[in-house]
Amino acid sequence: AHIVTLPGDGVGPEVTAAAVAVLDAVAAHYDHHFHFEEHLIGGCAIDATGEPLPPASLDACKAADAVLLGAVGGPKWSDPNAPVRPEQGLLALRAALGVYANLRPLQVHPALAELSPLKNDKLKNVDVLFVRELTGGAYFGAKTRTIDTAIDECKYTVAEVERVTRRAFQLARERRKHVTSVDKANVLETSRLWRTTVQRVAQEFPDVKLEHQLVDSMAMLLLTQPGKYDVVVTENLFGDILTDEAAALAGSLGLLPSASLGEAKGGLYEPIHGSAPDIAGQGVANPVAAILSTAMLLRHSLGLEEEASTVEAAVADVLERGPHTRDIGGSAGTKEVLDAVLAAID
Amino acid sequence: AHIVTLPGDGVGPEVTAAAVAVLDAVAAHYDHHFHFEEHLIGGCAIDATGEPLPPASLDACKAADAVLLGAVGGPKWSDPNAPVRPEQGLLALRAALGVYANLRPLQVHPALAELSPLKNDKLKNVDVLFVRELTGGAYFGAKTRTIDTAIDECKYTVAEVERVTRRAFQLARERRKHVTSVDKANVLETSRLWRTTVQRVAQEFPDVKLEHQLVDSMAMLLLTQPGKYDVVVTENLFGDILTDEAAALAGSLGLLPSASLGEAKGGLYEPIHGSAPDIAGQGVANPVAAILSTAMLLRHSLGLEEEASTVEAAVADVLERGPHTRDIGGSAGTKEVLDAVLAAID
Ligand SMILES: CC(C)[C@H](C(=O)O)[C@@H](O)C(=O)O
Ligand SMILES: CC(C)[C@H](C(=O)O)[C@@H](O)C(=O)O
Repeated sequence: AHIVTLPGDGVGPEVTAAAVAVLDAVAAHYDHHFHFEEHLIGGCAIDATGEPLPPASLDACKAADAVLLGAVGGPKWSDPNAPVRPEQGLLALRAALGVYANLRPLQVHPALAELSPLKNDKLKNVDVLFVRELTGGAYFGAKTRTIDTAIDECKYTVAEVERVTRRAFQLARERRKHVTSVDKANVLETSRLWRTTVQRVAQEFPDVKLEHQLVDSMAMLLLTQPGKYDVVVTENLFGDILTDEAAALAGSLGLLPSASLGEAKGGLYEPIHGSAPDIAGQGVANPVAAILSTAMLLRHSLGLEEEASTVEAAVADVLERGPHTRDIGGSAGTKEVLDAVLAAID
Repeated sequence: AHIVTLPGDGVGPEVTAAAVAVLDAVAAHYDHHFHFEEHLIGGCAIDATGEPLPPASLDACKAADAVLLGAVGGPKWSDPNAPVRPEQGLLALRAALGVYANLRPLQVHPALAELSPLKNDKLKNVDVLFVRELTGGAYFGAKTRTIDTAIDECKYTVAEVERVTRRAFQLARERRKHVTSVDKANVLETSRLWRTTVQRVAQEFPDVKLEHQLVDSMAMLLLTQPGKYDVVVTENLFGDILTDEAAALAGSLGLLPSASLGEAKGGLYEPIHGSAPDIAGQGVANPVAAILSTAMLLRHSLGLEEEASTVEAAVADVLERGPHTRDIGGSAGTKEVLDAVLAAID
């Protein structure tokens, strides 16, 4: 398999290197051959080429079986009014790859429950799979700016809602058969289209239960009864907010992976954490989110379920017994955690 | 003073009656005269007149010194695709009154910390005042719908951002002198205008510290370090989501009041909870949010600070010692809680 890596900025290169080492170990153990090709994205790409997603990077990603991304952005490129910004590279990549379904699983490892801001009894049975629409909505709508006015257009078509909803229901079938669709249908026109479309798609899945929640209620329910949810499907911006809220429950952002999938082969895998400039280059970043992203890559892009489970079991083992990086209360560095995961794979 | 009440739907009438009783007690105690005039809004207004905000209600609200609202909506009127919906009445009222600044204070009463989903050490020193922009953004932008496409326009002008930001800074001056402005400036054009404008307004308040957060990070920070924030200012939809998330921290939605203010006299006061149809008409709704909304009314619309503090102290006393309604772990009804508050005022 041909895998493009986009280490990006901040801790991106450190955690991506750890992820590649894990994939190498999997390849050796199961006798696969993974070919890696590294490219630029984000701030480092702006510095090198003037563009956050140079054509060479994009072409390579389009041709790859999967793309593994680190993180983009940092203080050096943080002016939101700059004409060229690191995040544009990420957004352009998501759009160009057509990866409309962003899967963000949330589980709380029992050994880390103490780190969660939530009371531990709330954390029992928390196992949520967020499916965030990733290539539509206000992120990609028309933008207008004059001296005294700004406009963002949030637009959704029925086809856009259908495909991500169908993916959510398919995933729910493999899980606890429950989909919660989140919108703001009492206020937004796009949410009314969203809700009507989800209701229609749901009829194709009579074995899966569907529930609707308003986004404001959902922000509350994620805290008061997080154990109740199975698959949560929502539009781009709501998904951005709710998945970060949910991530806080896990105790550290350094733990959570994501997969972004479209219709075509390929897929984009990234930790949900950012570039963490405050700890970049120190060898202390938690590699777990990037490593778990490789498990999602093995499963969703390469169809290697056993290999994916092996990686997840190795990570669970290390979370259980240590070593732990600082963000989860330990003092280990990236390399010690990586080495422990590699040892658990072998 | 002339106060219009809009009890609305569900538990609205019950909690509004309790709030009026408290205002009557304040009037008697301090020798004021409050005149009340009741009008229709929401589902009950649709049933009676076909409109969620009949002209008589709107005219009365415009002429009033303050408006006290219960809640709108319920299962009977919950089809988001119905041409006339209860929420439209509330949105039209906010727009017509020009109440662009929605104040939502969050404090966690120590006696109720056990009810919060958050670990108690996280709740120390939580005292946040959210200032949510209430009359702009996607709530009031142009909406388009065809068979296969829906569009919501999110629009902000510099003037709209300036006035709510100024209000937030003024409020911060009376508090801990710290403003956190929340946007999504790495993606949205409206957020870039928001951030630039907030930065400029901040120069009028050199004694107040300003910090920016992205909305996704803020959804996380509210859980990991809620005690760090003083005044949080944000646009309409982000404010809707973040204030509901924050409300979950208080342990029950039944506790939190809100005030919506514009430039003119008058102001709109409402509990942040909804119409709670599941418990409506049973006499068990928590009246605390509505009662605390009267304290905000006394303070912000009538300039009666001492009276406001008296109501707040009476409520704090009852939260400390009981009786408590079911939502906060007790078994008392609305009336017992009201009676206890009235007794504490006298
Ligand atoms: C970096 C940013 C543009 C991005 C987003 O908002 O989608 C990030 O927050 C995420 O959630 O992946
Ligand atoms: C009822 C609804 C329209 C309203 C809103 O979204 O503003 C409510 O959720 C609120 O926060 O006051």
